[in-house]
Amino acid sequence: MPRIITLTTDFGTGSVYVAELKGRLLHARPPLALVDISHDLRPHDIRAAAWLVGRACFAFPPDTLHIVVVDPGVGTGRRLVWARLGDQEFLCPDNGVLGYAMRHTPLAEARELPVAAAASATFHGRDVLAPAAIRLLDGERPETLGPRLASLASITWPEPRETEAGIEGEVIHVDAFGNLVTNLPAALWPRVEAAGGLAVGPHRVTTLVRTYGDVPPGTTVALVGSQGFIEAAVVEGRAADTLAARVGTRVGVEPSPYKP
Amino acid sequence: MPRIITLTTDFGTGSVYVAELKGRLLHARPPLALVDISHDLRPHDIRAAAWLVGRACFAFPPDTLHIVVVDPGVGTGRRLVWARLGDQEFLCPDNGVLGYAMRHTPLAEARELPVAAAASATFHGRDVLAPAAIRLLDGERPETLGPRLASLASITWPEPRETEAGIEGEVIHVDAFGNLVTNLPAALWPRVEAAGGLAVGPHRVTTLVRTYGDVPPGTTVALVGSQGFIEAAVVEGRAADTLAARVGTRVGVEPSPYKP
Amino acid sequence: MPRIITLTTDFGTGSVYVAELKGRLLHARPPLALVDISHDLRPHDIRAAAWLVGRACFAFPPDTLHIVVVDPGVGTGRRLVWARLGDQEFLCPDNGVLGYAMRHTPLAEARELPVAAAASATFHGRDVLAPAAIRLLDGERPETLGPRLASLASITWPEPRETEAGIEGEVIHVDAFGNLVTNLPAALWPRVEAAGGLAVGPHRVTTLVRTYGDVPPGTTVALVGSQGFIEAAVVEGRAADTLAARVGTRVGVEPSPYKP
Repeated sequence: MPRIITLTTDFGTGSVYVAELKGRLLHARPPLALVDISHDLRPHDIRAAAWLVGRACFAFPPDTLHIVVVDPGVGTGRRLVWARLGDQEFLCPDNGVLGYAMRHTPLAEARELPVAAAASATFHGRDVLAPAAIRLLDGERPETLGPRLASLASITWPEPRETEAGIEGEVIHVDAFGNLVTNLPAALWPRVEAAGGLAVGPHRVTTLVRTYGDVPPGTTVALVGSQGFIEAAVVEGRAADTLAARVGTRVGVEPSPYKP
Repeated sequence: MPRIITLTTDFGTGSVYVAELKGRLLHARPPLALVDISHDLRPHDIRAAAWLVGRACFAFPPDTLHIVVVDPGVGTGRRLVWARLGDQEFLCPDNGVLGYAMRHTPLAEARELPVAAAASATFHGRDVLAPAAIRLLDGERPETLGPRLASLASITWPEPRETEAGIEGEVIHVDAFGNLVTNLPAALWPRVEAAGGLAVGPHRVTTLVRTYGDVPPGTTVALVGSQGFIEAAVVEGRAADTLAARVGTRVGVEPSPYKP
Repeated sequence: MPRIITLTTDFGTGSVYVAELKGRLLHARPPLALVDISHDLRPHDIRAAAWLVGRACFAFPPDTLHIVVVDPGVGTGRRLVWARLGDQEFLCPDNGVLGYAMRHTPLAEARELPVAAAASATFHGRDVLAPAAIRLLDGERPETLGPRLASLASITWPEPRETEAGIEGEVIHVDAFGNLVTNLPAALWPRVEAAGGLAVGPHRVTTLVRTYGDVPPGTTVALVGSQGFIEAAVVEGRAADTLAARVGTRVGVEPSPYKP
């Protein structure tokens, strides 16, 4: 049964909503480790939540329970679910927040959670997910939570495409350093090397490195990042600012027009 | 004896003050769960601290110990106290930070904490409250902490008033979504329905819903929020911006002038 | 063996990097307490990390393991180390982040950590430090981690200087209240009192107090702060704004030109 719970929400760090959710969860039998993944996701940004949870969840020990509450549809007809992917468990609205995790790891099992009549219409994290978590933490089997679901809602992900002009992708995440994480997997790195650079919007990044410190501060570089994707960065600077890029900015691997 | 400690301060997330406080507390006998409620309260905002702690604390298991340090009077004559309200315990300055919690739950017991000569004049959280917490965590009885107090400092709360024009209240909290939580309790909702809307400053909100997702994004709505109070919100937007409102903005339930 | 781990990084609160690091660490044998010191240090600011860790670490119980990852040289030739100072343990890049802690407490032992071939070039916190932490948490002895090092990289610290005009120092930290923590130790306070004030940039602070609440809100004051250093503050205001000061702003203790 789970002993580690992670929390990913758009409630705001320091909000009363996070405090209430934790207070309720701590009614479960100890020991229990509560780990904040983020509470500062952009409100209602299901795609960002899906990316963050999908990237982070598989770093955790088996049977970790991930509670994900980015839920613009709270109180409407969208379902609330318990799910298992590989050796990780989830409690969340069925609105696509597991869409990125499910790209890598197929759904093993899912259950629909009933919503009690006494639940508020606007805070199902506290009133539905937390009670379900406590039941799991206290040893109940997931099959007691509700009826089995055959599948979960997904969301479309921008995938890199091969075009006549080369490979087209996009920025999928901007981190705290201003580094631009793209949707181009590390396997495409030889293509970047062959092309002599990576296009980011109207800019062309031609300094290809193994790590940031390989070149002087201020240099704009491309490299394979720690998430297994090609990144653009400015050494000790902010590529998001220097290249005026953000989530959705087009990136490309094009044969250099300057090469014969 | 307490095994869960919450922390609510204006020290700043990531500050050395929070780290020192936690470091000291962890000298208590394990196991011990430390839960951050907030460290980003506006400096010296006793009212905001009182609201947050008062809303959150009763979600926690019995015997949780809440340490609250918003303390503009640190080092002056204001007292430091241990208190019990219902099944929750508190360590804090006696400056009104328990004022909201005490509206709902009467004070069961309070003790005045002596300030040791060696304590700094500016960080009683670390030098007085943390040592008291450790004594409680290690099994000492609260009566050993200091002399009993008959009452604690309170602060005035804006209460909704019935006037000739209708009910007058105000915005009491703006959350991370920009939702406006008012001081009008859920019990007044039928009055809002009868009036056909809620006034927020000069604006009138006439779309009354059960939950955000009932109407399209961008709609300004009023509803009963998860805290048991009437709220104004913009679906997937920020009511605080749309309605130019903040803590203290007047709200009202007035019979519509457009109704006969 | 350590049972408490602290984390100090520039990864950004809520980032995937922090989540991955915690997920990996939680593979160690429980119980394990994870404490966030900060994830919002200015990117690559080794000096700020060294100050924060050096101030905070000795508040923790013996055998606490502090993981510090502010690492602009990740993947280059800089070493990764395990170190012990007094009764505290550290895992970090050898780039000066322990420079402030070592001013107070000499290095007791250090080991160089090998970097496995499979480690990413850009996230040694996850790929080198976390595995080393798990080995320690699971009971391995530090001497198994790698070869002994005689010394660690340091960084220069601005020290107060005695000049003809008086004592010269500087602002070393600005806290969440906008208080200016200087590098002038409390022992110099009698000199401030004798001089009748503290110079902060072009300003002269002449209200000398024991604690903030001794004088009315809005007053600019100097006092001995809880960190054992002389501070300038504005009561319930922000000295950093009022005095237009920041890290590096010159402070001075000068005999008043207005005194005979």
